[in-house]
Amino acid sequence: MKKIFILIFFNLLFADSMIKPIPEKIKYDRQKAKLGMYLFTDPRLSKDKKISCMSCHKPSEGWADKRKVSIGVFGRKGRVNSPTVLNAVFNFRQFWNGRAQDLKEQVFGPLHSNFEMDMDKKEVEKTVNTIGVYKKLFKKIYHTDYITADMIADAIAEFEKSLITPDCKFDLYLKGKAKLTPLEMKGKILFKSYGCITCHNGVNIGGNSFQKMGLIISYKNCIDDRYEITHNPADRCVYKVPTLRNIALTAPYFHDGSAETLKEAIKKMGYYNLGIELKSDEINAIEAFLKTFTGKQPDLGKFR
Amino acid sequence: MKKIFILIFFNLLFADSMIKPIPEKIKYDRQKAKLGMYLFTDPRLSKDKKISCMSCHKPSEGWADKRKVSIGVFGRKGRVNSPTVLNAVFNFRQFWNGRAQDLKEQVFGPLHSNFEMDMDKKEVEKTVNTIGVYKKLFKKIYHTDYITADMIADAIAEFEKSLITPDCKFDLYLKGKAKLTPLEMKGKILFKSYGCITCHNGVNIGGNSFQKMGLIISYKNCIDDRYEITHNPADRCVYKVPTLRNIALTAPYFHDGSAETLKEAIKKMGYYNLGIELKSDEINAIEAFLKTFTGKQPDLGKFR
Repeated sequence: MKKIFILIFFNLLFADSMIKPIPEKIKYDRQKAKLGMYLFTDPRLSKDKKISCMSCHKPSEGWADKRKVSIGVFGRKGRVNSPTVLNAVFNFRQFWNGRAQDLKEQVFGPLHSNFEMDMDKKEVEKTVNTIGVYKKLFKKIYHTDYITADMIADAIAEFEKSLITPDCKFDLYLKGKAKLTPLEMKGKILFKSYGCITCHNGVNIGGNSFQKMGLIISYKNCIDDRYEITHNPADRCVYKVPTLRNIALTAPYFHDGSAETLKEAIKKMGYYNLGIELKSDEINAIEAFLKTFTGKQPDLGKFR
Repeated sequence: MKKIFILIFFNLLFADSMIKPIPEKIKYDRQKAKLGMYLFTDPRLSKDKKISCMSCHKPSEGWADKRKVSIGVFGRKGRVNSPTVLNAVFNFRQFWNGRAQDLKEQVFGPLHSNFEMDMDKKEVEKTVNTIGVYKKLFKKIYHTDYITADMIADAIAEFEKSLITPDCKFDLYLKGKAKLTPLEMKGKILFKSYGCITCHNGVNIGGNSFQKMGLIISYKNCIDDRYEITHNPADRCVYKVPTLRNIALTAPYFHDGSAETLKEAIKKMGYYNLGIELKSDEINAIEAFLKTFTGKQPDLGKFR
């Protein structure tokens, strides 16, 4: 009985409105975004000329990567699971450990990383400046004869900005345009009652704060955490809370890709971060609720 | 003793020269090939705008696909394992069941297939004709105002033609420019003695004949075989012999992707097609020999 009252209390405490719908449209420069798409798909931007941004951010895998960790140039294994680019524009920082302030700064991460594309700014500039199509497009759009790394990042970031997924079922529900099923409704209540919403809220249902992975039960595999940047012991195992938007499309889960299914991820989050053992019917309900976060996927066909 | 004599006999019967080195260079139209590369990497050519040719022919996976079968538009599962595009120009036919005569004809296979890109010729033409960059490039290269499906296939085929891998260790050995290790040498002798070379020979060490999968012990999973084209009962479970060039890079193996490792593939080929049970030291030696078929990988950086 006591548990039920606590659940009701928290359910009332956290309003649905703690989650905000994403905008239906976003302003971006179409020409720059299209150019950015070309750069995003181009393996020539990597050291071994085999890896493009799209190699690890696949449209057909929720713009993330089904592999536990991605494989970069020369078959080098990455350290963390590729996060989705979808709605990344709404994250308050970029990367699992939030080391980039925005999309533009983020671009240089995978480009520079030894495990990913392994190109320094000069190499990227040199490469792009020798490609005829880019010379023309940058000339037209950036009015320049010399393409800088900054312009390259700007175009890619502009493309990524366009990758938003509006009108997911829950956004429509928030706007009074859709109804949730009883199972989804139950999931929503549990999501609030158990406190998932404490971290997964806002416009991106996450992506707006840093939190400890293993808040209650400590988590072992804390690679590439915020501590590696700040060297503050309090930042051990601290990560940017990932967005839950399109979460049904982006298995496997967590920074280490250790949860293979959404159900497993929900179970583990309950255990490590809430200190509770979720029952299978609760997991089913929460999963149904999380599936309402899958939005309308971006259509690259719009870039002509 | 008898076995040894048979092995020696066959080893002498099949000369090393049954395998031919691939040319170090190949003639192709650079401008068309570069344009073909853009088309090859472009997901807008698929129905859901998420799948490009490169989605299933990944430079980092030997221009093949590590997945057992590939996933096409709308998450649809393919039927067979994606073969490599590397050196495909040297195959006498294209596809596992050889239903295309050449690279150009092949292009329409994945483009049309429901399980892959799912676009008919008109849709492809319509899409490409609305993309500014392609309008300009085709105008320049094909001197046309209207881009036809035929031109699109021509450019992609020209790109694929450029994807050859010269100077593998065995080619250099054939030219007297490299020595094989004792293990590789043992593998070579077994490869000939056991008769692998009966089918895997010529310039592509395969790719030049149709053969039955399960010649001795019948094989069960005969999906998408030549019978589906010819309706000749003799063509059941018959496939184009795949090239062994770069075989170390293109796991998993067979039309159904059922062999996960090269060792497993060697063992199974011995069992199904030669009716012998290879010992593990023999498998190791043959594997070492097959690894000498990995050539110099194409560098997309050449397209500027």
